[in-house]
Amino acid sequence: MLIVKKFGGTSVGDKDRIFNVARRCIEDYKKGNQVVVVLSAMGKTTDELLAKAREINPNASKRELDMLLTTGEQTSVSLMAMAMDSLGVPAISLNAFQVAMNTTSTYGNARLKRIDTDRIKHELSNKKIVIVTGFQGINKYDDYTTLGRGGSDTTAVALAAALRADACEIYTDVDGVYTADPRIVPTARKIDEITYDEMLELSSLGAGVLHNRSVEMAKKYGVQLIVRSSLNNKEGTVVKEVVKMEELLVSGVACDRNTARIAVIELEDRPGVAFKLFNHLANHGINVDIILQSVGRNGTKDISFTVAEDVAEEAVKIIERHRTGSLKCSRVELEKNVAKVSVVGAGMMTNAGVAAKMFEALYDANVNIKQISTSEIRVTVLIDEKFVETAMNAVHEAFALSK
Amino acid sequence: MLIVKKFGGTSVGDKDRIFNVARRCIEDYKKGNQVVVVLSAMGKTTDELLAKAREINPNASKRELDMLLTTGEQTSVSLMAMAMDSLGVPAISLNAFQVAMNTTSTYGNARLKRIDTDRIKHELSNKKIVIVTGFQGINKYDDYTTLGRGGSDTTAVALAAALRADACEIYTDVDGVYTADPRIVPTARKIDEITYDEMLELSSLGAGVLHNRSVEMAKKYGVQLIVRSSLNNKEGTVVKEVVKMEELLVSGVACDRNTARIAVIELEDRPGVAFKLFNHLANHGINVDIILQSVGRNGTKDISFTVAEDVAEEAVKIIERHRTGSLKCSRVELEKNVAKVSVVGAGMMTNAGVAAKMFEALYDANVNIKQISTSEIRVTVLIDEKFVETAMNAVHEAFALSK
Repeated sequence: MLIVKKFGGTSVGDKDRIFNVARRCIEDYKKGNQVVVVLSAMGKTTDELLAKAREINPNASKRELDMLLTTGEQTSVSLMAMAMDSLGVPAISLNAFQVAMNTTSTYGNARLKRIDTDRIKHELSNKKIVIVTGFQGINKYDDYTTLGRGGSDTTAVALAAALRADACEIYTDVDGVYTADPRIVPTARKIDEITYDEMLELSSLGAGVLHNRSVEMAKKYGVQLIVRSSLNNKEGTVVKEVVKMEELLVSGVACDRNTARIAVIELEDRPGVAFKLFNHLANHGINVDIILQSVGRNGTKDISFTVAEDVAEEAVKIIERHRTGSLKCSRVELEKNVAKVSVVGAGMMTNAGVAAKMFEALYDANVNIKQISTSEIRVTVLIDEKFVETAMNAVHEAFALSK
Repeated sequence: MLIVKKFGGTSVGDKDRIFNVARRCIEDYKKGNQVVVVLSAMGKTTDELLAKAREINPNASKRELDMLLTTGEQTSVSLMAMAMDSLGVPAISLNAFQVAMNTTSTYGNARLKRIDTDRIKHELSNKKIVIVTGFQGINKYDDYTTLGRGGSDTTAVALAAALRADACEIYTDVDGVYTADPRIVPTARKIDEITYDEMLELSSLGAGVLHNRSVEMAKKYGVQLIVRSSLNNKEGTVVKEVVKMEELLVSGVACDRNTARIAVIELEDRPGVAFKLFNHLANHGINVDIILQSVGRNGTKDISFTVAEDVAEEAVKIIERHRTGSLKCSRVELEKNVAKVSVVGAGMMTNAGVAAKMFEALYDANVNIKQISTSEIRVTVLIDEKFVETAMNAVHEAFALSK
């Protein structure tokens, strides 16, 4: 078997953790597997490097920031190779230049395009464990790039795809994917298997175990992902195309507190006014989520929608700026204490009762629903942030997810 | 003019120093020059990285050590580019992969072979200051290598040669090359011009301003070196092929305390015994310096020689190991409290009186000479270490070097 194993910064934060990861990889190697390891920068290294850069130049170019940040993973991989070597197993570290990790040109947020696997295959055939820098790539100018948030997961999945690996294991500090965040829903249960699509809905909804981009790539290339803990030997959660037939109607409940609701009241009801509103926001890179539009009345209508909380004030400012022009309205309201709660499950595609069951559970728990949004495998409600725990536990219970 | 400027680790040790170097380079840039900057790792970075490595694996492979150490210069160059950028001057940092700094394969002590200057020329033509990582290269396996001691000086000279630069400025914490170490000889005077050969003798004799390899390379490719201070704007010392005709007989006095003397007493006087002795040492990578051989007597002779103090005990062990075999002798003596004092000067090639004048000065100062060695432009004596100051001042005075 060829296995790609990815460990995050916390897992390689100090000497003991480095050796813990080394031993873990060696176990698989000694069973006769070929092992490729992808590492992030150690602990807080990336933050420390960013602080150094800010001290020199608060507006440093992304090109130079990437040049600086990529030293972080190079440090991790070389130290890991030394650790494995001291445990008697031949290992070699490789950076983005050495594996020709080609990306788009965008510094700070590049996308992987192509990986040259020759060097890795050569080292594997020499019976070495190959340790590759996550998060980093090189672009057509022969410059370092970084892959943005969740970048090392993406590196691991891309390597697994390019090497046609039998599995891609993503190590985290939890045992796998849960039916809900155990800190909020104490009866939450680990999921053994989940589809890519469900995982995508869960990660975009703030389950936070895997980054969307890595799941999308895994789905595209059919890479079998395994999310498991770096602290124990439990099985973890397998993410793949089709899961066992005895699948549940709903596989998980997720919440996202990084949400704010903006209401544009008594907006002049002319053709194209909604388009203009969302176009202004899109031009500033602001993504809009659950949209609700009232029926027109007296030549006006109300439009409300959600955005990420950290861009909410900017969004309001943008709208205010156009109030005397293309967006005539009586006022703009901002509500920050809201959260999204969602149920996700491939099973609901063939079962219309999921939304109703969720609403019933929330009604029984006295949680008021402000807005609703659905996809084929997801139902999302917007509620008051203070009801998140109540709502999640009620929904989790209603779908018997702890069983 | 195209100028290559090299700054060591101390010169980029913190934010203030980084900006100091940045401003220095920008001055030249604003005069219309093309500027290439070569940097070492910041302050104690290399030592800290080595300590980290030792903690993980005291016998780490040199391949992985180089992978780790090269992050040091990459950090310096990216921060420097950010600093220049914040001062309004476009700059770009490049590492060994990006300038294809090809070296031999030997990790930890590689030699530069070839540099691809396309990228640098391209960035210079875009009016950028180009900042290149010193000390590091890549070998034919596409792995990082490092150049060993004085590596960044060598990088700078090699770049200056490849780019046919008009000058290569090596910045240090002293004003230039002195007639003697000012800490030992208070009347020492800065030298304005010196030949490559004199500089080679001085640096190999412990003057310690420039590393031998960089001077050798500068001589080979005719690169005009300028040694000057990063702390002030003084002219510094120019190192080149031919200096002004009014050159002094002697240009400097150097000392080397890292010296020990080994005497092999009553060595069996057979043909090839000296060869065997030095061959055993060479096989262990031990360089032997000033050799003195006594006239044979009773079928034995004494051979004494100097080695670097830090390998002296190893050298003695090697000889002891062969005492019952190829190197029969009555005993091996080790004397550590010795030092070499040398006078260097291209002028002495045509003047036989230099050695005599030096010996006279030492005699007058009551300094006993243990051994003597000479080259075309150098006279070296081995003396008791405790007489180093007296000897240097006496010789410095005798040749009127402070004038």
